[in-house]
Amino acid sequence: MTVLSDKPRATRTDAEPRIDVPALEGVLLGRWADARREVRALLKDERLHRVEGQTMAEHRETVLAQLRLLAQEGDVLRAFPTALGGADDHGGSLARFEEVLVADPSLQIKAGVQWGLFASAILHLGTEDHHERLLPGAMSVDVPGAFAMTETGHGSDVASIGTTATYDPATEEFDLHTPFRAAWKDYLGNAALHGTAAVVFAQLVTGGVNHGVHAFYVPIRDEGTGEFLPGVGGEDDGLKGGLNGIDNGRLHFTHVRVPRRDLLNRYGAVAADGTYSSPVASPGRRFFTMLGTLVQGRVSLHGASLNAAKLGLVVAVTYGNQRRQFRGGTQDEVLLLDYAEHQRRLLPRLAQTYAATFAHERMLRQFDAVFSGRADTDTDRQDLETIAAALKSTTTWHALDTLQTCREACGGAGFLAENRIVGLRADLDVYATFEGDNTVLLQLVAKRLLADHAKEFADLDAGAVARYVAERAADAALHRTPLLRVVQTLADGGDVRRSAGHLRDTETQRELLTDRVETMVAEVAQALRPAMKAPREEAAELLNTHQHALIECARAHADLLLWEAFTAGLATVEDEGTRTVLTWLRDVFGLTVIERNLAWYLIRGRLSGGRARTVTSYVDRLLTRLRPHAQDLVDAFGYAPEHVRASIADGSEERRQDEARDHYRRLRASGQDPVPEKSAGR
Amino acid sequence: MTVLSDKPRATRTDAEPRIDVPALEGVLLGRWADARREVRALLKDERLHRVEGQTMAEHRETVLAQLRLLAQEGDVLRAFPTALGGADDHGGSLARFEEVLVADPSLQIKAGVQWGLFASAILHLGTEDHHERLLPGAMSVDVPGAFAMTETGHGSDVASIGTTATYDPATEEFDLHTPFRAAWKDYLGNAALHGTAAVVFAQLVTGGVNHGVHAFYVPIRDEGTGEFLPGVGGEDDGLKGGLNGIDNGRLHFTHVRVPRRDLLNRYGAVAADGTYSSPVASPGRRFFTMLGTLVQGRVSLHGASLNAAKLGLVVAVTYGNQRRQFRGGTQDEVLLLDYAEHQRRLLPRLAQTYAATFAHERMLRQFDAVFSGRADTDTDRQDLETIAAALKSTTTWHALDTLQTCREACGGAGFLAENRIVGLRADLDVYATFEGDNTVLLQLVAKRLLADHAKEFADLDAGAVARYVAERAADAALHRTPLLRVVQTLADGGDVRRSAGHLRDTETQRELLTDRVETMVAEVAQALRPAMKAPREEAAELLNTHQHALIECARAHADLLLWEAFTAGLATVEDEGTRTVLTWLRDVFGLTVIERNLAWYLIRGRLSGGRARTVTSYVDRLLTRLRPHAQDLVDAFGYAPEHVRASIADGSEERRQDEARDHYRRLRASGQDPVPEKSAGR
Repeated sequence: MTVLSDKPRATRTDAEPRIDVPALEGVLLGRWADARREVRALLKDERLHRVEGQTMAEHRETVLAQLRLLAQEGDVLRAFPTALGGADDHGGSLARFEEVLVADPSLQIKAGVQWGLFASAILHLGTEDHHERLLPGAMSVDVPGAFAMTETGHGSDVASIGTTATYDPATEEFDLHTPFRAAWKDYLGNAALHGTAAVVFAQLVTGGVNHGVHAFYVPIRDEGTGEFLPGVGGEDDGLKGGLNGIDNGRLHFTHVRVPRRDLLNRYGAVAADGTYSSPVASPGRRFFTMLGTLVQGRVSLHGASLNAAKLGLVVAVTYGNQRRQFRGGTQDEVLLLDYAEHQRRLLPRLAQTYAATFAHERMLRQFDAVFSGRADTDTDRQDLETIAAALKSTTTWHALDTLQTCREACGGAGFLAENRIVGLRADLDVYATFEGDNTVLLQLVAKRLLADHAKEFADLDAGAVARYVAERAADAALHRTPLLRVVQTLADGGDVRRSAGHLRDTETQRELLTDRVETMVAEVAQALRPAMKAPREEAAELLNTHQHALIECARAHADLLLWEAFTAGLATVEDEGTRTVLTWLRDVFGLTVIERNLAWYLIRGRLSGGRARTVTSYVDRLLTRLRPHAQDLVDAFGYAPEHVRASIADGSEERRQDEARDHYRRLRASGQDPVPEKSAGR
Repeated sequence: MTVLSDKPRATRTDAEPRIDVPALEGVLLGRWADARREVRALLKDERLHRVEGQTMAEHRETVLAQLRLLAQEGDVLRAFPTALGGADDHGGSLARFEEVLVADPSLQIKAGVQWGLFASAILHLGTEDHHERLLPGAMSVDVPGAFAMTETGHGSDVASIGTTATYDPATEEFDLHTPFRAAWKDYLGNAALHGTAAVVFAQLVTGGVNHGVHAFYVPIRDEGTGEFLPGVGGEDDGLKGGLNGIDNGRLHFTHVRVPRRDLLNRYGAVAADGTYSSPVASPGRRFFTMLGTLVQGRVSLHGASLNAAKLGLVVAVTYGNQRRQFRGGTQDEVLLLDYAEHQRRLLPRLAQTYAATFAHERMLRQFDAVFSGRADTDTDRQDLETIAAALKSTTTWHALDTLQTCREACGGAGFLAENRIVGLRADLDVYATFEGDNTVLLQLVAKRLLADHAKEFADLDAGAVARYVAERAADAALHRTPLLRVVQTLADGGDVRRSAGHLRDTETQRELLTDRVETMVAEVAQALRPAMKAPREEAAELLNTHQHALIECARAHADLLLWEAFTAGLATVEDEGTRTVLTWLRDVFGLTVIERNLAWYLIRGRLSGGRARTVTSYVDRLLTRLRPHAQDLVDAFGYAPEHVRASIADGSEERRQDEARDHYRRLRASGQDPVPEKSAGR
C-alpha cells in the first residue's frame, strides 16, 4: 500500500465503514500477486522509465536498451516451455507483462512485439525444429523480430492479405512476394530499424491451390550492417500519436526465397514435393486456430489499459483531495473532490476500473487454464476469445475516456508532461484499434451472441447469418455454449418492474442487466430472420442495417460481464468494511450502466418513469457515501511514487496550500492584512 | 471548393438532391468569407506549417519565427484601432485568427497570446499613454509578451490570486510581489523563453485597501541578453501534451518596483498620493468588466476548435469513401463509409460541426457588434459572454470527441503523425480547460439561466442564490434578458406529445429542445428554493447537491443554441437541393440530441415509448440518405490539400485500391490465379 499523501485526512479517518487498504490491495492483485509485486519492484528502477522529451530516435534506442535490460533482469520468459528455459507460467507471465506499462507503454508494447507476437508465433505456430533453431534468438532479443501480419490494405480482414508465398518444389523454397503497394506489411514494431527477422504472414500457394494465410520465418536485415537483405525493402512509419519508443515500419518482399523448413508448420505443412497437409481440415477453422494464439495480446492489452486508467485515477483523485478552488460556505476553499460534479466525473470511472479489474482476473485465469492445457477445448478457447474481444474493446475505450477525464480534472497541470496523464493517453490511443479494432471486435461478440441465441429457436435457421458470420469472422457453428451462461449463474426471474425499487439489490441489478442483453439479442435476431434465406447480397444489407444494434448488444454484454465479475469479486473480500464500500462502488457501476441506458428500460416497460428518476438520485447518494473512501480506493491499487511519478500527486500541492494558508494567517495576525474595498469605509 | 479525390464518385453523381458545393462553401464561410479566403491562401505557405517531429526547442523557435512572419504578412492587426495601424475590424480579425489553426495550432495560440491577450490587454485595460508607449512593440512582436493572470494555485478562481501590487506614494511605484509558491504565475505562453514583458494581474493595494485584481505592464527580461530582470524569476513548464511550439512557463516577482503609470488604468486608477478611483463603482462588477475583454479568447477558441473538427472530418470522410475492408454481398470489398456503424460514428459529428459553424457565425456577429460599439450595452456583453461560455465548452469537447472518432475511423493509419489527426487532437486537448475550464463555464451558463428564471417568479427571492452567484461568478443582478429569448423566437406551444410523431418537423424539434431547457431550469430552481433564505454554508451545500443538474441545464441550453443557429442558417441557403440535404443534417443533429436525452423525455411524458423508439430508426434512415452527400459536405469546408496535408486523404488510398484490383483482374485473366483450397478438388 502506498499513501501518496503523508497527512492524515479527515475525510478518511471520519469515514465509517473503513477500507482495509493492504487487504484490498491483495485482493486486486489477484492470483498472481507475487508476480505483480516482483515486477513492480523492478519497475521502480529509473533505468526502465520513460524519459520525457526525448526525440523519436532517442526514445527508440532507449526502449531497445530497456528491452534488453528486461530480457536480462525481468524474468520475461515465463510463458515459454520449461524445456526451453521458460516456466510454462502463462497467467503469471501476462500479469507481469501488463505491469510493464507503468515504466513506459512503449517498453510494454516493444516487449509485446518481441515476446508476445514474434517469439510467441514461433512457439505456437512452429514446431520442434523452429523452437530449437529460432526461439533462443527471439527469446534473448539477439534477434529482434517483427510480426508481419497487417498490410497497408488489410488490417482487420487478415484473411484477405495480398502477400503470397508460392512453393517451388524444384528448390524446396517458397517465393515470398508483395504483389502491389497495398500488400506492404505495415505498422510493424521492430520493422523500421531494429528487426533482423520477421514472422511474415502470406497466402500459401502450392500446386496452384491457395491454402490461405500461413506464417513464415524470414530474416530481413543483415545483423552486422543493419541493411535490408536482398529482396526485402521497407519504410519507416515515422512519428506517431504515441508509443514513439517503438520503431514501427513497413516491409515488402520482392521474390524472396524462403526455405521450406521456415514455414511455421504446426497447422499446415508442405512436403518436399509440394503436397499440402494440415491437422485442421477446414480452411476457415484452421485460419481461426492460427489467429487464436493472438488472444493473449487482447487479454494483456485489457490488463495494461486498465493499469493506465488506474494511474490516471491515482493522480486525479490524489490531486482532487489536495487541490482547492473557490470558496464554498466556509472560510476555506473547497477541495475539488468535494464538488458533486468532480465526484460524478471521477468516481463512476473508478467504479468501472474496479469492475474491469475483477473481470480481468477472471479472464486471466481462463487464459491460464486454456494455455496451460488444463481447460483447452474448442469451446474454452472460443469463450476466451469472445470474452477477450468484449473486454479489450470496452476497457481500452474506458481507459482513454478515464485518462482524458483525469487530465481535465487536473486542469492545466494535467496537460504538463511531468504529470504523466497526457503521455499515457497518447500512448493508449492506438490500443482502441490495434490487436483487433474495437468496433470489429464488438461485432464478433455480437455474432457469437446471435449464434448462441439462434439455435435455441427451432424455427430460426442460423443458415445465412451463420454462413455470413463463418466466412468473415469466426466459425459460428462451433459456438455451442450460450455465452451468458458462461459468465453468470442466471438468477430466478421475478418481476423486474416490482423489484426495480430495490435498485441497490444485487438481483435487481442482475435482472436488469441480463434482461437487456437477452432482449436486445432476441430483437436483433428477430429482425435478422429474413436474412436467413435471403440471397447473400440482401442478407449483407440487412445485417448492415442492424450493425449498430448488434454492436449495442455486444456493449450490453460487456457491461454484464464486468458487473458479474465485480459482484463475484465482492464475495472474495473478507473485511466487512471493505466489502460494504466495494458494494457501493459496484452499485455505482451497475446503476450508471442502467442510467446510461435508461431510455431502453423505459421504452420496454422494465422501469417506470418514477423508478427511473430514482436511479440518478441514488447514484448521487452513493457518490456522496463513496467520496471519503476515494483516496483509499486508489491507494489500494498499490502503486509507489516511483510508479506514479506525477508531480501534482506527490504531496506538493498540499504543501503549497498549507504555505498559502500560513501566509494569510500570519498576515491577519500581523494586522497588515489589507481590507477588501467593499468592506472599507463602512 | 476542393475535391480531394479526383475521381468521379458514383455516390455523388447518383445522389438526388445534389449539393451546390461552391455555394455551400460560401454560406459556411459567412460574413467574413473574404478574410477567411485571404488568410487561407496565405496559410498554404509551407513556411507557416507545423514540421512534425521537431523537438520542443526547435518547435518553439520555428513558431516564434512564424509569428514574426505572420506579423509581417498576415494582416494580424485588424482588431486594433485604425489610429494605431489597425482596422477596427473585430469580427474579421477573429475570423482570420481562427483559420491559423490549419497551419499549426501552436502558431494560432502563440498569436493568441501575443495579440489576443498581451497586446489586447494593453488596448482594452490600458489608456492612451499605454497605447502610445506600449502597444507598438506588442503589435509588432518587438516585445513578445506574456499574459500573467493564472497562478499555480488559482486558475478558474482569478479573483483569489495571491500576487499583490502595493502602492508606495513615496516613490510613486507599485511593489509587485509573489508571497508564496502557489502565487507563481503559471502556464503562460511566452514566459519560459521569449517574453520580454508581461501584463501581470495582481491584487491592487493602496492605503491599506485591497481594490481587487488589476493589470500591470511589467518588463521581465533584458531584451539583449534574454536574462530575467532583477526581482523576476521563473521556470519552464517543459513538455506538454500538445502545443509544444509555445514556451509556457512560470513567473514570480520579488518586490519588483512598477512605476505608477504602468498600471493599466482604464477601470481603476491610482493617483500620485495613492487615492484609488474607478469608473465602475462595484468591485465585483469592475472585476467582471475587466475580465469581460477575455471573451474574444472564448469566441475564437470556439471557431478554432471547430476548424480542427472540420479537418478531422475531411480526413476521415475522404478516407472512408476510398478505403475498403471486408467483402459484403458483392465481389468488391465494402467502402468503410457504407457500413452503418461508420456512418453512425461520423455523420452525427458532422451534423454537430455544421450546427456549431452556424452558431459560430452568429456569435461572431454578436462579438463584432459588441466590440465595434454598435451594440455594446451591459446586456449585450453579458449575453455574448454567456453564449461564448456555452459554445466554447460544448465545441471544444465536441472537437476532441470528433478528432478521436476520426482517428479511430482511420485505424492504424489514423495514428500516424503524417495523417495529422493525432497531432490536432493532442494540441486541442487543453482547449477544454484553458480560457475558462469547460465545467466552470457551464456553471456560469447555468447560473445565468437560473437568474433569468428566478425573477419571473414573484415568490422566489433570488437573494441567497443571486448573492452566491454574484460573489463567485458573475453579477447576476445585471442579467435582465431571459437568455432563451435572445437565442430564439419561441414557437407557439401546441401539444408536444401529439406532434412528436412528426420528428422531422422543425417546430416539434424546437419544442422538445426548448421545453427541456425550461423544465430543467424550473426543476433546479424549485429544488434550490430552500437555499434562498438558508445560511451561506447550507446554501452552498444545496447548490453543490444540484451541481450536476445545473451543468446538465447548461448543456441542454447549448444544444438548443446550436440547433437554433443551424435552423436559422437553413433559411440562408438558396439552392433547394443543398437546403434539403442540410435539413436532413439539421434533423440528424436535433434528433441525436433528443436520442441522447430520450430517458428525460420519457420520464416526463414528453414522448411515449412508441414515439421514442422511432427516434433511433428515423436517425438511421436519415444517415442512409445523407451518406451519398458526405463527401460534398466535407468538401464544402473549402480546405485545399495544402491545408489538410494528410497522406491518407490525398487520393493515394484510392490509387492503392485500384492497383490491387487491377492485379487480381490481370491474375484472373492470366489463368494463373490459385484456386482457394475450399474450391479445390471439387
